Amino acid sequence: MKQRVYLDWNATTPLRPEARAALVAALDICGNPSSVHGEGRRAHKVLQDARAAVAALVGADPETVVFTSGATESNALALSPGVHRPASPPVKRLIVSAIEHPSVLTGGRFGREFVEIAPVDRSGVINLVELARLLANKPPALVSIMLANNETGAIQPIREVAELVRAHGGVLHVDAVAAFGKMNINFKSLECDLLSISAHKIGGPKGVGALIVGDDLRGLEPELRGGGQEKGRRAGTENLPGIAGFGAAAKAVMTTWEQHARHCEILRKRLEAGLKQAGAVIIAENASRLPNTTLFTAPGLHAETAVIGFDLEGIAVSSGSACSSGKVQPSHVLEAMQAGPEQVRGGVRISLGWETTENDVDRALEAWRKLAGTLVKKKDETVLERF
Amino acid sequence: MKQRVYLDWNATTPLRPEARAALVAALDICGNPSSVHGEGRRAHKVLQDARAAVAALVGADPETVVFTSGATESNALALSPGVHRPASPPVKRLIVSAIEHPSVLTGGRFGREFVEIAPVDRSGVINLVELARLLANKPPALVSIMLANNETGAIQPIREVAELVRAHGGVLHVDAVAAFGKMNINFKSLECDLLSISAHKIGGPKGVGALIVGDDLRGLEPELRGGGQEKGRRAGTENLPGIAGFGAAAKAVMTTWEQHARHCEILRKRLEAGLKQAGAVIIAENASRLPNTTLFTAPGLHAETAVIGFDLEGIAVSSGSACSSGKVQPSHVLEAMQAGPEQVRGGVRISLGWETTENDVDRALEAWRKLAGTLVKKKDETVLERF
Repeated sequence: MKQRVYLDWNATTPLRPEARAALVAALDICGNPSSVHGEGRRAHKVLQDARAAVAALVGADPETVVFTSGATESNALALSPGVHRPASPPVKRLIVSAIEHPSVLTGGRFGREFVEIAPVDRSGVINLVELARLLANKPPALVSIMLANNETGAIQPIREVAELVRAHGGVLHVDAVAAFGKMNINFKSLECDLLSISAHKIGGPKGVGALIVGDDLRGLEPELRGGGQEKGRRAGTENLPGIAGFGAAAKAVMTTWEQHARHCEILRKRLEAGLKQAGAVIIAENASRLPNTTLFTAPGLHAETAVIGFDLEGIAVSSGSACSSGKVQPSHVLEAMQAGPEQVRGGVRISLGWETTENDVDRALEAWRKLAGTLVKKKDETVLERF
Repeated sequence: MKQRVYLDWNATTPLRPEARAALVAALDICGNPSSVHGEGRRAHKVLQDARAAVAALVGADPETVVFTSGATESNALALSPGVHRPASPPVKRLIVSAIEHPSVLTGGRFGREFVEIAPVDRSGVINLVELARLLANKPPALVSIMLANNETGAIQPIREVAELVRAHGGVLHVDAVAAFGKMNINFKSLECDLLSISAHKIGGPKGVGALIVGDDLRGLEPELRGGGQEKGRRAGTENLPGIAGFGAAAKAVMTTWEQHARHCEILRKRLEAGLKQAGAVIIAENASRLPNTTLFTAPGLHAETAVIGFDLEGIAVSSGSACSSGKVQPSHVLEAMQAGPEQVRGGVRISLGWETTENDVDRALEAWRKLAGTLVKKKDETVLERF
């Protein structure tokens, strides 16, 4: 039997050996980081070392890192009504792009009904003119935009977004979860106030993430309250092994991400050329995209069926996001890109990582050629709308 | 140099070997439990096995288990305005006892200013007459009472509380975190609607917990929203290694907790006899208490100084709760028990576990006798108020 090929790195990455070693070492620390005795202090040191490593990876100061249970919690903490810049009033409005992760689209503590949606263009990039219109002549808003989209890989113009938000006295949250480890991320040069990241997107363990909270942000209300952990910004005994693993993964990514990005980009080009040869259309093809992410479709393709087809061929791929827990739903990302009704059900995502080989890509292409024969409609049955 | 003695099991327990093995095995699963491919299904199976084990330990059905990042999150999720029993209106009031954990005293999504406090008696047990008074002649309330107190170990009369709450159409949340693994806990026979538990109190890993949500509870609003994980009750990629470790710890506890409870109780009696001989007063001595927990004080004792003194003698103990992140604060539990101003700063907690030996207890007593000489006031300097 052939070895399985894992091409769903945007859902979750395999654990890096460095992260595994640090996590396992932390399992032997019985102390609670909040305890004052020696065992507690030892735990606290692990926490602080990890904090420094995670901060360094995103160009932030260690004390701005708030560890959380993952990206969803980071986003929930970030979407806090009342945050504000020192010279501006507390925000009461939330603007998000139409392609944000579901945990942002729910609006956090603003509530879904108070979310204002900024549209994207047909290649899945935020429309800055519309964003400016939403910001203008109204009280300052919290704006939440992802650095890159998890389904298409399309990179968003965060610098321009930040300029607009600043000009209107607003606060900017960047969900950098999909981009994390795949491109350069510098909290300070992004000029945002809040940044969400997640360990298991960079070879760290599942169940741990962080929110970077800028020094001069005011009014952030904790989501979890009680103990004084994380300087009162996130109560609860810390996930020490998870955080230790996150820190070690961050350290490893520091020195390897560029090389891995180049590696992925070469393989992604090979993949996309092969997919197109066999009748696929690459979604957001002309957008600036993450080096490892390909979302594609074909006439008549049903993503769920295709994912199962790939799985039977030994290839793990995804239908857009894995976060909807097996629900067969049209992709809100493709809907936002004004894809036709056929395409919103047909987006299959292949995402690569540092362990992916040329052979893995060729195995995926082999599977696609096999599947395309039965899953894709003939040219005379439909006319494929081009993204 | 002498081996260190860890007597702070209520803060966090050492990881059980079974939990360690299951956690480490889960590190190799790269799939996201929400993914439909083989790797995802493998992850999902680990999740469901752990769910069944945790459910079994507390006599609940697997589908009532919602995994969280720990006790603080479980409590935050539980304290949701609008929950109700099928035949009763949504609750708008929250009643908690004065000795609850800080994460409950904050009132969750009710907000601290809306919390009504039920007092406790001098031995730290909830006053049922006062609770009845708070419930009577008003709309139904959510009542949150801990099964046993984390500082004193005092066990609360939950059956009687449940009867009162039911009679008034209310909803009952039981914070069973301190009691977890130390006494019998049966969700169904407790007749509560919500129950919080935490893995690292029973030899599971830090950073994972659960909220048990009764079948017939209505109106529970998720705290973390976005993906459909945990049947829509808690969004976010699951902490798979942590949950696997939690499940394995739960399985181990099933067959060992009674024996460990007896073991701890014998040692606790030896400890308390020795402490009293050397001038200490056991707090809540005559209350029904957890088998492993001793909170004691002595005239003029400052808990923080005592904890540091014990630490220098190689013994890890605590000043009440470890959750306040090193803050030197009077204990709200002792204040609620109407302890005098001297005592609220003087409570030192020693908590035992399955690895504790007679020799460990004797080492602690030896340290206490040494410390008492310098930290405790002479009889003629003060009159010790008896609890």
